[in-house]
Amino acid sequence: MSNLKHKILALVKDELDEIEVELEQNLNPHLDLVSQTASHILFSGGKRLRPLLTILAARLCGYKGNYDKTLSIVFEYLHAATLLHDDLVDGATLRRGKPVAHSIWGAPATVLVGDFLLARSLSIAAETGIPEIIKVIAEITENMSQGEIQQLFRKGALDISEKEYMEVIQQKTAVLFQGACRVSAMIAGSSNRKESALSEYGFNLGIAFQMADDLLDYTSNTSVIGKEVGADLKEGKLTLPVIYSLKTASPKDRVLMENIIKDQDFSVQDFKILINMLEKYEGLAYTKNLASGYVNKAKDALSIFKPSTTREVLLMIADYAVARQA
Amino acid sequence: MSNLKHKILALVKDELDEIEVELEQNLNPHLDLVSQTASHILFSGGKRLRPLLTILAARLCGYKGNYDKTLSIVFEYLHAATLLHDDLVDGATLRRGKPVAHSIWGAPATVLVGDFLLARSLSIAAETGIPEIIKVIAEITENMSQGEIQQLFRKGALDISEKEYMEVIQQKTAVLFQGACRVSAMIAGSSNRKESALSEYGFNLGIAFQMADDLLDYTSNTSVIGKEVGADLKEGKLTLPVIYSLKTASPKDRVLMENIIKDQDFSVQDFKILINMLEKYEGLAYTKNLASGYVNKAKDALSIFKPSTTREVLLMIADYAVARQA
Repeated sequence: MSNLKHKILALVKDELDEIEVELEQNLNPHLDLVSQTASHILFSGGKRLRPLLTILAARLCGYKGNYDKTLSIVFEYLHAATLLHDDLVDGATLRRGKPVAHSIWGAPATVLVGDFLLARSLSIAAETGIPEIIKVIAEITENMSQGEIQQLFRKGALDISEKEYMEVIQQKTAVLFQGACRVSAMIAGSSNRKESALSEYGFNLGIAFQMADDLLDYTSNTSVIGKEVGADLKEGKLTLPVIYSLKTASPKDRVLMENIIKDQDFSVQDFKILINMLEKYEGLAYTKNLASGYVNKAKDALSIFKPSTTREVLLMIADYAVARQA
Repeated sequence: MSNLKHKILALVKDELDEIEVELEQNLNPHLDLVSQTASHILFSGGKRLRPLLTILAARLCGYKGNYDKTLSIVFEYLHAATLLHDDLVDGATLRRGKPVAHSIWGAPATVLVGDFLLARSLSIAAETGIPEIIKVIAEITENMSQGEIQQLFRKGALDISEKEYMEVIQQKTAVLFQGACRVSAMIAGSSNRKESALSEYGFNLGIAFQMADDLLDYTSNTSVIGKEVGADLKEGKLTLPVIYSLKTASPKDRVLMENIIKDQDFSVQDFKILINMLEKYEGLAYTKNLASGYVNKAKDALSIFKPSTTREVLLMIADYAVARQA
């Protein structure tokens, strides 16, 4: 475990324990099948990053109530619902080192339990009785599904632009991180300035986090990352390292790369050639660099808050988003 | 077209036209894939019964605003989202006489567009800014997904009781009808008494409607019903006509029926034998009779409203729910 991760975990141990309790209590499982399938995805070693952001952001805003904990799990449920459906849609095989849910419980249960988690999230949001918060969460859900649809629609396309890529990761990832931070300012009754700052932090963090995720697909290995390396490409999903390299490659190398990408059963050798291309044409470095820029933006946004341990942890989380190895 | 259907359609022509407009406008289709897939299910000759109930119930409560129309389509979107996912989960082939969405656009698009419609429904609900209404709609969504999961969980089971059957149809169908009626009383600011009456009407109508649907699977034919006759049984879904007949059959006939049910590739001849059993052991008559009882309960609930054309149409709709041939 990296030093940074170790430090963060030591600082948020209590919060992570509270999140586990809330996740179980709010699942409210009347049905074994829901419980089993939902637990498989919910309790499989996820980072709890989204609910943690909610709780830390609430503390940063001086919130003294208990509602942040309940609300925080909305973001983990939404995340889990998306993972269930996306793994199915993408035909993924591994998630966090375990077989994906649909390979165990079948596609039907995976579709319906995803629906249940989505519905449960919105029920918990509705229970706040605060229309603004419910609106934020409902809009996130809509955005996420649009991002996923856009991604599916352009699956296999070799002409995806950086702009399109940015739109998709904003919708499918950044708005959820943004919401997880923003709702805390809302329940704390913070100023618009603080709400905007936390929105800004969450949004930029989300972008950086997704870019780092997309990088890991080329730079990690299966045992560490817990899913198949090169899975994005096998699923016909072009991410920024590839998009950038395709744009900057020589015509000859571009054809070489395109042929590997189009052959969805590419060999390990082919994948190595592709990674060499991503290095040669700086797709990896470009993405890493851009991600760091978003981390800095995220951190800058917190400068309006006075120094505190909580602010420190949020800054460390931003660094961790791109430094992580899995 | 039956006389009753003809009379109802003549009375609600304008409302149905308004619903079509709202359905298109609120789909808000930024994406071709959403629009195509959602339109396939949304504009394929559905009855628009749920949004129609919202509009008529609002009128019955003396509501003068325009919000009932927007809110009404929440119930059609939720219905459409459920149909998309259920046809996928059930492996259905035909819906309203057309190939199901997933056979045209594939399972991935069907999952994601279902998610989008679900999310869009809750966004529209959230836009009301009325926490009670949002709560009702979020709870409906949760209930529906639980009903579907319960049904999936017990798929193929021969020991389903009438009680279990009732629980499933309450969750997957009746709560949506109930909500479609109830929200109108809420936006109209009606008395609790009126809200309860409309809840009661919608809930009982929903149960009767689902029972009639389950009957049609044995009494209609494919060209009229627009889906494969006997599809429920082929999908391992035992409904009340079968549940009741299994319970009342002689041991010998029970084995005969069970063997047909277990063989999911049963022949037309086998299916005819099964229908004879449903007649012999009165599963069809029992279900029809029970459905009529729920229709009467639904109609009785409206007795607190003074006579009007709107009330008349709602009463006719209740009769139509069980009289319909498709």
